[in-house]
Amino acid sequence: MPLFSVIASHMLAVDERLKEVLEQHNPVVREVSDYLQQASGKRLRPALVLLAGRVGAIGSLSFDLVEVASAVEMIHMATLVHDDIIDKAEMRRGMPAVRSRFSDPVAVLSGDFLFARAFQILAATRRPELVDLAAEVVYVMSTGEISQHLDQGRIASEEAYWRRIEAKTGFFLEACCRLGATAAHASDPVREALGQYGHHIGLAYQVIDDLLDWVANPNVLGKGVGGDLELGIYTLPVIHALEDPRFGEDVRGMLAKKDQDLVKNVGRVLSDSGAFDYCRQRAADHLRRAQKALEQVPEGIERQELADVADFVGAREY
Amino acid sequence: MPLFSVIASHMLAVDERLKEVLEQHNPVVREVSDYLQQASGKRLRPALVLLAGRVGAIGSLSFDLVEVASAVEMIHMATLVHDDIIDKAEMRRGMPAVRSRFSDPVAVLSGDFLFARAFQILAATRRPELVDLAAEVVYVMSTGEISQHLDQGRIASEEAYWRRIEAKTGFFLEACCRLGATAAHASDPVREALGQYGHHIGLAYQVIDDLLDWVANPNVLGKGVGGDLELGIYTLPVIHALEDPRFGEDVRGMLAKKDQDLVKNVGRVLSDSGAFDYCRQRAADHLRRAQKALEQVPEGIERQELADVADFVGAREY
Repeated sequence: MPLFSVIASHMLAVDERLKEVLEQHNPVVREVSDYLQQASGKRLRPALVLLAGRVGAIGSLSFDLVEVASAVEMIHMATLVHDDIIDKAEMRRGMPAVRSRFSDPVAVLSGDFLFARAFQILAATRRPELVDLAAEVVYVMSTGEISQHLDQGRIASEEAYWRRIEAKTGFFLEACCRLGATAAHASDPVREALGQYGHHIGLAYQVIDDLLDWVANPNVLGKGVGGDLELGIYTLPVIHALEDPRFGEDVRGMLAKKDQDLVKNVGRVLSDSGAFDYCRQRAADHLRRAQKALEQVPEGIERQELADVADFVGAREY
Repeated sequence: MPLFSVIASHMLAVDERLKEVLEQHNPVVREVSDYLQQASGKRLRPALVLLAGRVGAIGSLSFDLVEVASAVEMIHMATLVHDDIIDKAEMRRGMPAVRSRFSDPVAVLSGDFLFARAFQILAATRRPELVDLAAEVVYVMSTGEISQHLDQGRIASEEAYWRRIEAKTGFFLEACCRLGATAAHASDPVREALGQYGHHIGLAYQVIDDLLDWVANPNVLGKGVGGDLELGIYTLPVIHALEDPRFGEDVRGMLAKKDQDLVKNVGRVLSDSGAFDYCRQRAADHLRRAQKALEQVPEGIERQELADVADFVGAREY
């Protein structure tokens, strides 16, 4: 079964809305805006908004929900465009990144205009609580990334890792669920349960992302193995091996030496030490907790699809 | 008389609010946030919000007004931090730019977190029209700059120049006045008149800024002469000389040759051709229209101060 089938028509409405909102009269800006829309991702965040907003709902779709889902995707696009500057990434979603296709300055400005349009759409719902939560997402992500960036190359504790991915992904996916529930006027307990669900799939999603940076087929993922380590970012597999008394000393030595075979050598230790298995277990824990949270949510096809999203997060290989 | 004396206490309230809102618990992020606040500029935008919101007002200051003024300054700070990445600027407001002090990535993220906080403050006023107008400012500026950036080194018409500075400065200062008037529930005609005033001082301000890039004392301005031209940005003095039948051919030749003395040679022509005088006249036109718009605004010390701001814009030398 393809994902998001119960909201397929609403997802199309989001695509239509993005096209409308990002339309440009100036031909130069239009080229950039069209390019931004070509590289379409998994659309996980707008899907969460729609599913969370439809859970237990009867009848027609609220207009706000499509608006919020579109705004959330634009915020996500903006953060990706800005992240690529930070990571000096060449590719994104199988295409040259905006910074490669155009330039870093155009990427800075494109992110800004996506943020601006997103907040205009949210303002038009006349629901300040939606603006506030979406802005909080941008705030948490950007300050979290400043801290990560300035701490680059410093060995972090596992606790600091979880804080970092909470800021990067956990809070955003939680906010998507909360935004959908709030836009649809869900009850407080349902909104809280959906928020918990989003939080846990967010953490699982990021742990698996960090794991796939090591174990995915590079041809499928579209980028090299160990890319995070090359950028000086220590993710859970590395942190786990560092904290393992049997392997920590070795890995620390490799990180200090930074020789040409760093990624290959560290990768071998991660595999031997069981760090990859540990990551899979931790992701599975969070997915179980996500499923558990769904028990507090009204039954129905949307809840089933949220459960399927959790399964998809656990199963993804790229 | 110092500027903004009638709103001096409110300006202090804005400074206090910025400090509160930008406070950080994470020590790494705190260092960046503190640095952002050290480089305090002219505070023209929050002053316009406050003055426009106080014109004709009786009694105590509305809470919203200080909030909006603070948000507007944060948006301005964000655009400056991002602009410095685009222009590869080393200095800003007499200090190393955020990108020089930290790095381009930190500058990208700092701008984002300033935007995010600004929109949270605006959302908290529960006035969606304020969020919308502030987001429109970011939208107009960023798309305008994309167009300028991708057109760099292309000779533009004077008409295109006015469109560009409208997007860069005119609309922002207009929006500051409109935001203040809207926050204070001014009548429609007063809000429109204040918007017109802001629009015209914005255009005058930018023309004079572009003129000062050529004629200011580099020691006072804190940057070299002809910096815009070095970046491939053709401002009004150059465009005017290019459109002058007596000098256009010469300047076009210099721009094509791009030799080491480009700035010196073009500067001499600009001086001879009367391009600088033309800029001063056009700025004076707009300042007259700004003063004219003020006639539709209730009399009082705030209106007098708005008139003084226009005089200040006309007289500034750095």
